[in-house]
Amino acid sequence: MRTQVVIIGAGPSGLLLGQLLHKAGIANIILERQSGDYVLSRIRAGILEQVTVDLLHEAGVGQGVDAGGTVHHSIELVFSGQRHPIDVHGLTGGKVVTAYGQTEVTRDLMAARAEAGLQTVYEAAQVQPQGFEGDKPFVTYEKDGATHRIDCDFIAGCDGFHGVSRASVKDMVKEFERVYPFGWLGVLSDTPPVSPHAIVYGNSERGFSLCSMRSLTRSRYYVQCPLSDKVEDWSDARFWDELRRRLDPELAERIVTGPSIEKSIAPLRSFVAEPMRFGRLFLAGDAAHIVPPTGAKGLNLAATDVKYLAGALIERFLERSDAGIDHYSQRCLRRIWRAERFSWWLTSLMHRFPDTEGFGQKIQEAELDYLVNSRALSTSLAENYVGLPL
Amino acid sequence: MRTQVVIIGAGPSGLLLGQLLHKAGIANIILERQSGDYVLSRIRAGILEQVTVDLLHEAGVGQGVDAGGTVHHSIELVFSGQRHPIDVHGLTGGKVVTAYGQTEVTRDLMAARAEAGLQTVYEAAQVQPQGFEGDKPFVTYEKDGATHRIDCDFIAGCDGFHGVSRASVKDMVKEFERVYPFGWLGVLSDTPPVSPHAIVYGNSERGFSLCSMRSLTRSRYYVQCPLSDKVEDWSDARFWDELRRRLDPELAERIVTGPSIEKSIAPLRSFVAEPMRFGRLFLAGDAAHIVPPTGAKGLNLAATDVKYLAGALIERFLERSDAGIDHYSQRCLRRIWRAERFSWWLTSLMHRFPDTEGFGQKIQEAELDYLVNSRALSTSLAENYVGLPL
Repeated sequence: MRTQVVIIGAGPSGLLLGQLLHKAGIANIILERQSGDYVLSRIRAGILEQVTVDLLHEAGVGQGVDAGGTVHHSIELVFSGQRHPIDVHGLTGGKVVTAYGQTEVTRDLMAARAEAGLQTVYEAAQVQPQGFEGDKPFVTYEKDGATHRIDCDFIAGCDGFHGVSRASVKDMVKEFERVYPFGWLGVLSDTPPVSPHAIVYGNSERGFSLCSMRSLTRSRYYVQCPLSDKVEDWSDARFWDELRRRLDPELAERIVTGPSIEKSIAPLRSFVAEPMRFGRLFLAGDAAHIVPPTGAKGLNLAATDVKYLAGALIERFLERSDAGIDHYSQRCLRRIWRAERFSWWLTSLMHRFPDTEGFGQKIQEAELDYLVNSRALSTSLAENYVGLPL
Repeated sequence: MRTQVVIIGAGPSGLLLGQLLHKAGIANIILERQSGDYVLSRIRAGILEQVTVDLLHEAGVGQGVDAGGTVHHSIELVFSGQRHPIDVHGLTGGKVVTAYGQTEVTRDLMAARAEAGLQTVYEAAQVQPQGFEGDKPFVTYEKDGATHRIDCDFIAGCDGFHGVSRASVKDMVKEFERVYPFGWLGVLSDTPPVSPHAIVYGNSERGFSLCSMRSLTRSRYYVQCPLSDKVEDWSDARFWDELRRRLDPELAERIVTGPSIEKSIAPLRSFVAEPMRFGRLFLAGDAAHIVPPTGAKGLNLAATDVKYLAGALIERFLERSDAGIDHYSQRCLRRIWRAERFSWWLTSLMHRFPDTEGFGQKIQEAELDYLVNSRALSTSLAENYVGLPL
């Protein structure tokens, strides 16, 4: 087999890249280790920057977010039992974010790919990118008892943090990492979200909490918990009780509870691998970087990588120019580090740290107090939340 | 002896408080452990917020800063070998700071006190505030072989971090502290400052540097150094060489070197003691809180404490109202914690931390890059630098 670009990973990054390349007439095949159903079952982010929404439109899959997304003009911070709205729209000269689940983005992209008749190989085992340091890269994989090989011009590693792409270059990357001393216990529930037009970030003595949503009938809530906790420790009743205790009384009163349809504990991690290009292999999205979910930058950063990578590959195939390819890593990393900074800052600001002595806690309180009283720092929060300029 | 207010400490806080009380007709005596010459020999801060300059005028000692101060409209950040001006004046709607040495402020206040014929007891040993939890406070001290006692209505503890005032209430205060893993090596030199109209803050691979000034003919420069270094390790030549290597080439070229007239290594500390009132004893300035010198908030915070304390005591003596006294601690502490946050943030942003792993260093670089490219975060820096609203 031969194609122009082999994409490893059929998550939103890989699917979006495939669609953008296809629109430009560039042939591509996606290899995915899991089944399509498994990919769709992963519950992830749900807040899209405008640049991400625009990119979905560019890829021809904007109808879903247009019909099912909910525009957010603000965010809310809750601390010391009080709510403080941050007018994101007003502070950024009219910018907004859109609440639309990653699962829905993935489903829209899968449907478009199927409709275009593009090839995705699910349950491809032992995927291995090869020869990318020379001129003749290829990818091997095993399926149905046979080993297959696809020759190509370029390989895009969109296979996430644990994928084979970064593992294939592990001697060539420099890794930067911070692991946070707590996790997020998340509950998905078919209940109307308590705050349908603004994500609520809470910092209470009991820890962080988040009121988010996937749609107007599906809520996503989180509470900070020790990493040693197990999901079995948390009955639905305990979760709802804990969430309420971390919010202000008025909001707590309004929470509509219901059975959880998904419940999980996720660790929080900041991670960046540099560089993101290795000859004819490119890393994009979680394969190269992870942010803690605070601030919802993960999917948006992946989308920007894909935008840059699609642009660079199109430039190469259609204009025979290497400029985009040569600048891909540097261009992505500047934006990535800014988003890493924002996610780290917001995580540090909103969580309770078990090992922070008194001074650190007082500084956090002073920063929250200053933030909601300073138009300047509120604007900094807002401009990062909607996404810094490309 | 009897007076209305005994002030412990004849540094700028105590002298300023004495002058403001005197203007309102309130009798006060200052007790100082050291000699006047010793007090004047302490080299300290040199950047005054407008609120501090206004307060000097209110106290009748504004001529010195008017004649000898240099207005700064901006600050400069140097990193990655490049200079980035922050237009403080433009970003804050016209606010500025004034470069004028703390030594000069002290001298002006001493002269005004002498002229008014107010009593300052220098070289007062074993000063001890007493009875302040009841209605009849008094202060005892030893001088010329005799023990003396001054009865009073209130005691103001303006005697700095190591003074007796906070030590007298040590069982009643809660202390918050952070000690930084480096010091500042400072050199005072009678040379024209390299940047007479903007303090320069440098962050290089070799560590922090600062180009400051006391007047148009007297420079004050600093470089970050290990706390284990001794002043004797640093010849003038080594200091100038190291400073130059931490700046951008153009600025380094322009540095005028000369013999140091003072050279010292100071540790950096963040510290707050709460509360600041204990019956009829009040703490003000360094007696209650310390900031690292980055951002030049120490003297300005002390001045604000004194402003609040003078106002509260005047209210009490002239209007028989306890409102100001009762709110003194809370009112000061909100402003103090905001300045502590700013000083901690700027210190964290501009220094190299020996124990920061790769991720922390990359975050610092991303924050600097974002800061100088974001009007919002630049404005936050600027509004803190000129002083947040009272």
